[in-house]
Amino acid sequence: MAGPPRAVALLRTAVRPGLRPGDRPVLAAVSGGADSVALAAALAAEGPRAGVPVGAVTVDHGLQPGSADRAARTAELLRGLGLDPVLVRRVTVGPDGGPEGAARTARLAALGEAAAGLGARVALGHTLDDQAETVLLGLGRGSGPRSVAGMVRERTADGVVWWRPLLAVRRATARQACADQGLPVWDDPWNADPGYTRARVRGELLPLMEEVLGGGVAPALARTADLLREDLDALDGLAVAELARLAGGGLPARELGELPAALRRRVLRLWLRDGGVPDVQAVHLHAVEVLVTRWRGQGRVDLPGGAGATRTSGRLVLSPPAARGAPPQDAPQTREESRP
Amino acid sequence: MAGPPRAVALLRTAVRPGLRPGDRPVLAAVSGGADSVALAAALAAEGPRAGVPVGAVTVDHGLQPGSADRAARTAELLRGLGLDPVLVRRVTVGPDGGPEGAARTARLAALGEAAAGLGARVALGHTLDDQAETVLLGLGRGSGPRSVAGMVRERTADGVVWWRPLLAVRRATARQACADQGLPVWDDPWNADPGYTRARVRGELLPLMEEVLGGGVAPALARTADLLREDLDALDGLAVAELARLAGGGLPARELGELPAALRRRVLRLWLRDGGVPDVQAVHLHAVEVLVTRWRGQGRVDLPGGAGATRTSGRLVLSPPAARGAPPQDAPQTREESRP
Repeated sequence: MAGPPRAVALLRTAVRPGLRPGDRPVLAAVSGGADSVALAAALAAEGPRAGVPVGAVTVDHGLQPGSADRAARTAELLRGLGLDPVLVRRVTVGPDGGPEGAARTARLAALGEAAAGLGARVALGHTLDDQAETVLLGLGRGSGPRSVAGMVRERTADGVVWWRPLLAVRRATARQACADQGLPVWDDPWNADPGYTRARVRGELLPLMEEVLGGGVAPALARTADLLREDLDALDGLAVAELARLAGGGLPARELGELPAALRRRVLRLWLRDGGVPDVQAVHLHAVEVLVTRWRGQGRVDLPGGAGATRTSGRLVLSPPAARGAPPQDAPQTREESRP
Repeated sequence: MAGPPRAVALLRTAVRPGLRPGDRPVLAAVSGGADSVALAAALAAEGPRAGVPVGAVTVDHGLQPGSADRAARTAELLRGLGLDPVLVRRVTVGPDGGPEGAARTARLAALGEAAAGLGARVALGHTLDDQAETVLLGLGRGSGPRSVAGMVRERTADGVVWWRPLLAVRRATARQACADQGLPVWDDPWNADPGYTRARVRGELLPLMEEVLGGGVAPALARTADLLREDLDALDGLAVAELARLAGGGLPARELGELPAALRRRVLRLWLRDGGVPDVQAVHLHAVEVLVTRWRGQGRVDLPGGAGATRTSGRLVLSPPAARGAPPQDAPQTREESRP
C-alpha cells in the first residue's frame, strides 16, 4: 500500500515526536492559512495513533468584514478532520503595539486561555520560513544575539506550553500537503500587504537575499538560529549556576572579575533582577560591571527604582529599591520575549 | 583654537586607544579608498603624539591596467602624510577561491609579511558598514553563530597582530574625513561591480533592509555581532577550561552529560582536535556525543583519519588516527576563520 504523498508524510513526521502516549492534549491554533491547516491535518492523523487528544482553536480578530463567517468555515473544516473540541474565539484587538502587534497580543491571550481551560498544549504552525523572517526582523532590531535566535520549538509561559513542530518544515511543503489532501486554505491578505514589515521581509527582502547570497538563505537563517539558541541557553544556564555559587551577602568581586565578560554580565543582570531592581538597561549593567573590572575606589552606582550597588570589602552589595518608589517590576519585555 | 572637523576627530578618537607609548609600530594597510586613507591620516596624526611609529603598505594586485601607477600615487600620498616607511608590495593573485577570495589571500599574505619584517601591527580600515556586510554574508552561509559574529577588533594570527580600529565608524564618516582633509580617494570599481557578492550586499541588500526594517540596520548588525562575539568567546573559553578540568585518561561521560549541550560539543570538538583527529565535521561530533547522551552500550565511533572513539568504564577514550593515514591536520578553516 502506498503511503501518503511526500509533503503529507513530512508534516506528520514533524509532529510525531511531540505526540507520545500519556502526553497532554494538543490544541492546534489554526488561522485557516496553509501552515496551520497542514499542521491541524497532521495532528489529526498522528494524535489518535499516539492516543493523544487533539483539538483546535481559531481566533476571529474581528478586523475584516466576514471574519466571523471565515472563522466558522475554518471550524467546520477542523471538525471534518476529526479534531475535538474545535473552539472559535472572538477577540477585541486593542490599539497598542501597532496592528500586527495588537492582533498578536489578543490572539495569544485567547489561545493561552483556551489551552489553559482544557489543560492542553498549544501547537503553532510557524514554519522554517517564518523562522527566517523572525531572524531578519530580530537583526533589524539590533537588540543582541537573543533577538536573532528566533522562535523556540517548545516553551512554557504562564503555565501554557507553546509548541512549534513545523520550524524545520518549509512553507511550500505545508502548502503542498494541503493541496495533496484537498484542504481549502485561506490566504490572509495581511500576509501580502506591504504595509506590514513581515510581509515585506517575506515578499521582498528574503527573495533578494536568496538572489544575492545564493540559494538556501532561509534554511541558513533557521540553522544559525538553532545553533545560536543553544549557545545562548548554555550561557544563560551557566549564569544561573554561577549566581547560585557566588551569591551570599553580595557577590565576590574577584570571582566575578575572573568570569568571561558575557557570563559576568549575565550574572550581574540576574543578580540585579533578583534584587528587585526594575528595568535594568545596558547602561546600568555597565556601571555595575565597572565596579568589578575597573575598580578604583568609586562610590555607589545609582540604579532604577532608587536601588544602588556598592563595592564593599571586595563584595558587590545591593541596596534594594526605595520603598517609596514604584514596586519592583519585571524588566520590560522586548517584542521577542512577548512571543511565547 | 577650533579643533579638527567632526569626522576627522571621530577617526582620530577611534585609533587613539590603540596607540599607547611603548606600543609596537603600526603599518596601515591602504588600498587608496576612503576608509583606508582616512585611517592612515588618523594614524599619522595620533601616532606621533603617542610616540608610536606609523608606516603604511599598499598592495598592487596587478589585476587592473594602471594598478602599479595607482599604487605609486597612493604611496606618495601616504609619504605626504608623514608615514614612514611606506611600502608598495606587488602580489600575484592565484586562481583559487574566486576573484575576491584569491585577491584577499594574496593581499593578506603580503601585508602579514611586511608587518612581520618590521615587527609591526597591521591596521585595517574596515568600517561599521563593512562589518554589517560581513554579518550578512555570514548569515547567508549558515555555518552557525560564529559566521554571524563578524570581524574582530584585534587578532593575532601567525605572529601578526591585525587591528581594525574603525569597526565602530561609519563609512560615510571616513569619506567625510578625507574630504575635510582634502585627501584624494580612489573608488575601487570592484566595490560597485554587481558581479561581486559583497558589492551587491552593499549596493542592494543593505539599502532594502534599511527601507524594510527601518533605519539603523547597519549599526544594529554591527552591535549584534559585537555582543555575539563576546558570547561565543565566553563559551569557547569555558570549553577550554572544562577540557583541562575533565581530560586525563579520556573524558568522564557523566560530567560531560551534565554540561549544557553547546559547551559539551565544544569540549568534544577540542578534545578530538587535540587528539589529532583531522577534519572533524558536525556528523562526527554528533556521533561521539551520542556516546554521552544516548548511551546504550554501543561500540566504537569511527572518525576521520582512522581514529575512533569508544566509551569504556564510563569514560570516552580516543584511539589516535592510524599511523598509515594522513598526518593530523588542523580542522579546515572556514572562510571566516581565514580572515585575520
